[in-house]
Amino acid sequence: MDKIGRVISEIRPLDKGAMEEARRRQDNLTKPRGSLGQLESLSIQIAGIKGEARPKIHHKVIFTLASDHGVTKERVSAYPSEVTVQMVYNFLRGGAAINVLSRHIGARVVIADLGVASMIEAHPELKNKKVATGTRNIAEGPAMSREEAIRAIESGIELVEEELPEGIDILGTGDMGIGNTTSSSAIAAVLTGADVKKITGRGTGLDQEGWRRKIKVIQKALEINKPNPDDPIDVLSKVGGFEIGGLVGVILAGAKNRIPVVIDGFISGAAALIATSLSPAVKPYLIASHQSAEPGHKIILKHLGLTPLFDLDLRLGEGTGAALGIFLAEASLKILNEMATFKEAGVSQGLLQF
Amino acid sequence: MDKIGRVISEIRPLDKGAMEEARRRQDNLTKPRGSLGQLESLSIQIAGIKGEARPKIHHKVIFTLASDHGVTKERVSAYPSEVTVQMVYNFLRGGAAINVLSRHIGARVVIADLGVASMIEAHPELKNKKVATGTRNIAEGPAMSREEAIRAIESGIELVEEELPEGIDILGTGDMGIGNTTSSSAIAAVLTGADVKKITGRGTGLDQEGWRRKIKVIQKALEINKPNPDDPIDVLSKVGGFEIGGLVGVILAGAKNRIPVVIDGFISGAAALIATSLSPAVKPYLIASHQSAEPGHKIILKHLGLTPLFDLDLRLGEGTGAALGIFLAEASLKILNEMATFKEAGVSQGLLQF
Repeated sequence: MDKIGRVISEIRPLDKGAMEEARRRQDNLTKPRGSLGQLESLSIQIAGIKGEARPKIHHKVIFTLASDHGVTKERVSAYPSEVTVQMVYNFLRGGAAINVLSRHIGARVVIADLGVASMIEAHPELKNKKVATGTRNIAEGPAMSREEAIRAIESGIELVEEELPEGIDILGTGDMGIGNTTSSSAIAAVLTGADVKKITGRGTGLDQEGWRRKIKVIQKALEINKPNPDDPIDVLSKVGGFEIGGLVGVILAGAKNRIPVVIDGFISGAAALIATSLSPAVKPYLIASHQSAEPGHKIILKHLGLTPLFDLDLRLGEGTGAALGIFLAEASLKILNEMATFKEAGVSQGLLQF
Repeated sequence: MDKIGRVISEIRPLDKGAMEEARRRQDNLTKPRGSLGQLESLSIQIAGIKGEARPKIHHKVIFTLASDHGVTKERVSAYPSEVTVQMVYNFLRGGAAINVLSRHIGARVVIADLGVASMIEAHPELKNKKVATGTRNIAEGPAMSREEAIRAIESGIELVEEELPEGIDILGTGDMGIGNTTSSSAIAAVLTGADVKKITGRGTGLDQEGWRRKIKVIQKALEINKPNPDDPIDVLSKVGGFEIGGLVGVILAGAKNRIPVVIDGFISGAAALIATSLSPAVKPYLIASHQSAEPGHKIILKHLGLTPLFDLDLRLGEGTGAALGIFLAEASLKILNEMATFKEAGVSQGLLQF
C-alpha cells in the first residue's frame, strides 16, 4: 500500500493559471466564442492537467490490460474464457481493433498480462505483470486477496512508470477479459449504490436468460462477499479483476504525472470509480471518451461527473473508445495552438461581446 | 438546369452486394458481432457507396464555400458582414479552425468564393465561382434569381469535377457566410414544414432580443417570397444563399461520383435538404457528422433520416464537424480492412451465435 499511498499523495490540483490563459486564448481565436463546444473545454482542461497554457501532444499511449475471471464458470459471458488469451496473441500480432485504431491515431499500445489464466509465451511487446492465473469465482468467495488487489494496482502504476522514459503526453485505458463486465457491474453497484439490475447489461452479447443469470450471480457475489463501499481496495479484492486493479494503478499514475487520462468504456469506468474513491483528486485528470452501449456506463459517468465526448454505440473495450477520444483531445490542442487570433488574422471580433 | 438534371440522372443506388460482403467481413472480425456499433454500419454504408467490399480512403477533401447575405442588414447576426471576406483570407493563410482540423486528418481544403460581397484578390488556393456580390435582402424580396440559383448549384458541381483528377475518396461540406443561419432556417422551415420559432437558433451568438428579431425576419421573408416547397430551386432562389446552392451542387456531384458525402452542421444540413428534395437518390450517400448546437439541426437530421456520429456542441461551420466525421469514417474502414478475422487469429467465435 506504500507505493499506492505515495502516488496518491503526489496528485496535485489542476493549474488554474494555465487554464485561465488557455481560456483567454480560445476566446481570441478566429471563431465565435464557445463555438467549438467541448473541443474548447477539453483543451482548457488539458492545459490545467499539464500546467501549460499551450500544451502539445507527441506521445500517445494506450494501456490494454488483460486478465481472466473465475466467474465465467457461472456462464455470464457469451464467449469462453480462452478468448482472453487468444485475444492477447491477436493484440501482439496487431490484428485487433485496438491495434488498428492505435495505428490510425499514431499511438503506442502497451499490452500487459495482469492475470490471464494460462501462461503466455514471452514476447517483446508483452508486459508480464501477472498477479495470479485468473481471479477466483466471485459467486463463491472473494476474487482475490487484499494483497493481490494491492499488487494489481501497483502493477498498473509500474506500467506507466516504465513507459515514462519513452514519453507519455496523453494516455488511454483499455481492457480485455472475458467475464469482466460482471465484475465491473458488481464494483459499480457497490460504489455508486445503483441497483444491480440497472447497472448490469448484456456484455458482449448475452440473451435474456443469460442476462437474468448474470444479475443473480452479481447479487450472490455481493451477498457472499459483502464488499465495503468505504474501502475501495476491499471492493476490488472481493468482486474485482486483476486488469481492473491494474487500470486503477494506470489512472492514479497518470494523475500523479500530470498526464490526461482518457477512459474507455464500462470496465475502465469501474476502474475510475475505484481510483476516484481512493483519491477524489484524480477526477479532474479524467476525460470520458465515449458513452458505451452497456447501460450501466451512464450511471458510472454520472457518478464520476463526466460528460462523454461521443456515443457510437461501442461495446468492445480494449481501449477502442479511448483511442478515438485521444484523437479528439489532440484536435482540441491543435485548435488551441495553431488557429490564428482575431488580431493576427485581421478579423472583426463581432458587434456583440459576451 | 441541364447540367443539374444530368448529374441527378446519373446517381445510382448503393451496391447491395458490396454491402453484404462488407457486413459478412465485419461479422467475422475478432470482436463480438456489432460491438463497434456505428463504426461497423458506417463502413458498410461506404462499401455500398463505393461499390467495393473493402474500400480505402486516400484522398480526403473538404469543400468550404463562402458567400454573403443581404439579410445581414436586418441585424440577424452578432458579426458584421465583412467577417465573411476576412475569414476567407484567414482560410487562405491556413489560420482558421477548418485549416487546423484538415491538417489533423490529412485532408485538402477547397476554398471557394460563391458570392462574397467584396472582390477577393486572386489566390492560387481560392476557387472563384462568384455568382454575384452577395444575395439580396430576403426580408424585402428574393435572395437571387432562379438563374443565379441554378448557377450556384452548377458551380458546386464544377468544384467537385475540378478536384476529381487529384482524387476524392471522401468529401466533407463546409460553409462561411455571416447571416447564413437565417437563410438556412428559412429553407429548413419550408422543406421540413417545421415552425420558424423551432427551427431558428441564435447562430453565432445572438441575444434574446436578436433571436426574436431573427424569427420575425424569417417569417417576413417567407410571407413576402412564398417559396414553393415542391420546387427546391425556387426555395433556394427565394430565401437561400450562394454558398448553400454551391453545397447542393457538391452533394449532388458527390453522390453522382459515388463519393461518401460527410455533411457538417446546420448550413450543410439545409443544403442537404435541397439536394435530397431535388433527388431522394442522394440520401444513402450522406453521412451526418455531428449534431450541431443550433436547435433546428435536429429537425433537419430527423427529416433526412440521419443519425449524427457525435455531438460536441459545435456551432462553427466551415466544415469543422465534417472533418472529424471524415476521421471516423476512415477509422471505420481501417477496422474493416485491417482487423484479423476469427479464423486468421485463431480466436473462438463464442458460445452463442446471433
